[in-house]
Amino acid sequence: MDRIDDTHDASLESWVDSANAHDTDFPIQNLPLGVFRRAGSSESFRPGVAIGDQVLDLLVARDAGALPAAVADTLAGCERGELNAFMSQGRAVRVALRRALSQGLRRGSALQARMQGGLVAQTEVEHALPCRIDGYTDFYTGIHHATAVGKLFRPDNPLLPNYKWVPIGYHGRTSSIGVSGQAFHRPQGQTKGASDTPDFGPCKRLDYELELGAFVGTGNPLGRPVGMAEAEEHLFGLVLLNDWSARDLQAWEYQPLGPFLAKNFATTISPWIVTMEALEPFRTRFERPAGDPHPMPYLDSAFNRERGAIDLELEVWLQTAAMREAGIGPERLMQSNFKDAYWTVAQMLAHHTVNGCNLQPGDLLGSGTQSGPDIGQGGSLLELTCGGQKQVRLANGEARTFLLDGDTVLLRAQARRAGFRRIGFGDCAGTVLPAMAY
Amino acid sequence: MDRIDDTHDASLESWVDSANAHDTDFPIQNLPLGVFRRAGSSESFRPGVAIGDQVLDLLVARDAGALPAAVADTLAGCERGELNAFMSQGRAVRVALRRALSQGLRRGSALQARMQGGLVAQTEVEHALPCRIDGYTDFYTGIHHATAVGKLFRPDNPLLPNYKWVPIGYHGRTSSIGVSGQAFHRPQGQTKGASDTPDFGPCKRLDYELELGAFVGTGNPLGRPVGMAEAEEHLFGLVLLNDWSARDLQAWEYQPLGPFLAKNFATTISPWIVTMEALEPFRTRFERPAGDPHPMPYLDSAFNRERGAIDLELEVWLQTAAMREAGIGPERLMQSNFKDAYWTVAQMLAHHTVNGCNLQPGDLLGSGTQSGPDIGQGGSLLELTCGGQKQVRLANGEARTFLLDGDTVLLRAQARRAGFRRIGFGDCAGTVLPAMAY
Repeated sequence: MDRIDDTHDASLESWVDSANAHDTDFPIQNLPLGVFRRAGSSESFRPGVAIGDQVLDLLVARDAGALPAAVADTLAGCERGELNAFMSQGRAVRVALRRALSQGLRRGSALQARMQGGLVAQTEVEHALPCRIDGYTDFYTGIHHATAVGKLFRPDNPLLPNYKWVPIGYHGRTSSIGVSGQAFHRPQGQTKGASDTPDFGPCKRLDYELELGAFVGTGNPLGRPVGMAEAEEHLFGLVLLNDWSARDLQAWEYQPLGPFLAKNFATTISPWIVTMEALEPFRTRFERPAGDPHPMPYLDSAFNRERGAIDLELEVWLQTAAMREAGIGPERLMQSNFKDAYWTVAQMLAHHTVNGCNLQPGDLLGSGTQSGPDIGQGGSLLELTCGGQKQVRLANGEARTFLLDGDTVLLRAQARRAGFRRIGFGDCAGTVLPAMAY
Repeated sequence: MDRIDDTHDASLESWVDSANAHDTDFPIQNLPLGVFRRAGSSESFRPGVAIGDQVLDLLVARDAGALPAAVADTLAGCERGELNAFMSQGRAVRVALRRALSQGLRRGSALQARMQGGLVAQTEVEHALPCRIDGYTDFYTGIHHATAVGKLFRPDNPLLPNYKWVPIGYHGRTSSIGVSGQAFHRPQGQTKGASDTPDFGPCKRLDYELELGAFVGTGNPLGRPVGMAEAEEHLFGLVLLNDWSARDLQAWEYQPLGPFLAKNFATTISPWIVTMEALEPFRTRFERPAGDPHPMPYLDSAFNRERGAIDLELEVWLQTAAMREAGIGPERLMQSNFKDAYWTVAQMLAHHTVNGCNLQPGDLLGSGTQSGPDIGQGGSLLELTCGGQKQVRLANGEARTFLLDGDTVLLRAQARRAGFRRIGFGDCAGTVLPAMAY
């Protein structure tokens, strides 16, 4: 527990009053980083930190002398709204910024006057991706998801033989990653037909996937694997990630090289990167069912066993067009917990590099769909509807097997532990638009 | 044939004498683009064009007034050695540069004096990747490769049902793409063990794959598919591409989401992008065996049927460490032709975007392994050795089932047609280093 410090103290309060509300995602103990500008403006995007219902503009705070000079210097290169240069500098620099922000934003700080001018209401901003994402890899660490999906194809043998040994992953598309608020057209493509000839048209089985995304901070050179002893040092923080999926396209295209057009039309992440430091109090044991194999040495460490997992409650919410028109808020479809993942974030990173593959600051590692063990805890409609065989009923009388045009899916996450302030991730929202005419 | 013009005239000669040699890859009819600097220097990389055994420095030529002003302007943004800004401007701009270079470099040109100072011998330069590659997708268009590899797993039914309908592709890793001359450490990782427990160690079945890479010029916005009518306009040019593959890692990891660590440790491309204009005389009919399905409408056009394929002879050469030490040059292992691909480059691009996925200038589309129909035309050792069951014998008495440390693999390509000058691609060479201690 050596990485818990006074920035995690549950009794800390901020002079930004909204940060002290019991239900805020962004108390002074969180301090997640993102980029923003005033909505509708043509300003450059700029780095900021979420505090209560406000964003603190880090460049304004810096220029007002509200950050120590050594900390201010570490923001160099982020002026154009990409955090990569900051991310590349590693943990110590991140901790220093966290300390400076915690001290400046806490109630009674002498820096309040210098920081105050940097506050902008979150309702008045728009976000961009927090960094340039040069590489995006999606893993498959949700064993309950892998089992449920595998059962649809192989009822007696749902998990493939490699699953408990290999943190399965594959490369995703970076160009179509968007930030919360992303709206995208329903994809079209080939699907298996009733006859020997495939069909072509808009996707009929459009789905979401509830995932976490881990951002890489410090990279590694090509040919130099990152071992488990160092893997945590290369992680920057987490976001929510919706891996939108076209199930009918996927079923027809994915053999033998994996999903492609079924995934690369859109991926949505939440705007705020919750740092590894903010998550420190919620680290927990990484445990596997009795009888399951131990991870191979390159995927194992004492730290990973003791504190490799993260106790993080995850939720999917849905707001249909009809709900929106009737003024009805989103409805929760499920809950799960990231601590149930079969592989930790450090294991994903160590595995990715074991063959010498290089990672770069700002690379994104998706966790795969995080479903819980119980019925009703599926992290996708594919699971909640048993492969589209039954419907999910909504409170307003609507029902869904897969997503319809106008549906907005929201992912949410919160970390709670006795003795610590609850922290959240903010919304990761995305909306389905009709297929484009072709 | 409307795109054949005087730059393709076989009788054209250059005042750079080496460009007139009958066996040069780079006659004045080719004019491929790349980036380079003097080997071992700390200069910025800069755009250049290959001519005979020389490189013409495009910035020097521009600054000496050897390019028309309108053409000179189109090089803005390429000063730091990335061609993306030029690539984004599309075909007309590329044609204008080609014409200007053809006129300036031809024998008797009044611009010779202005260009001469921009020549550097190819033996004195080193290359970087010709552009920033934000997205890399690898396809699987070699039907003879897909059939041969499929036979190893499914002797009676080698091709999966989607193969003749879908240009199968998957996302690759951009960070480990290197330019010819790349040397990389043998990857390590998990492989299937004799017992239930997998093995861990250096790859024992390291292989190459003979591919073409197509660079995207103009991109498309997210949500806006590129139809076959426009697909050719979005293509910039071709390079050779070696998709190094760790077969034993691949066999254990690839189910169900495709290859990952088996591929992402290194990918090597040739330094010179041969433009679509240079390839114009070698375009040919895109034909399929009688009885095979017609491509779906979104993958079909009259142009594609008439001229969608490219008649391009491909070769793999091997030089082992022992051969190098004995002063023996590389030995050719096989030959095939890109016109045998089951899908054209335009079809790869149209398929990639049909779901709305956006492509960006400088994105790279790999063709998949280009094997020929006959025994001995396999584009990988996996094929030439029937899955590692027999050996490839070399003239010096050595033999290979898979690659050994110190092996250098070279890919080469040439296009020939009566009435036109032969053009080539230069070497795409890469060398296997021993696994790193871990």
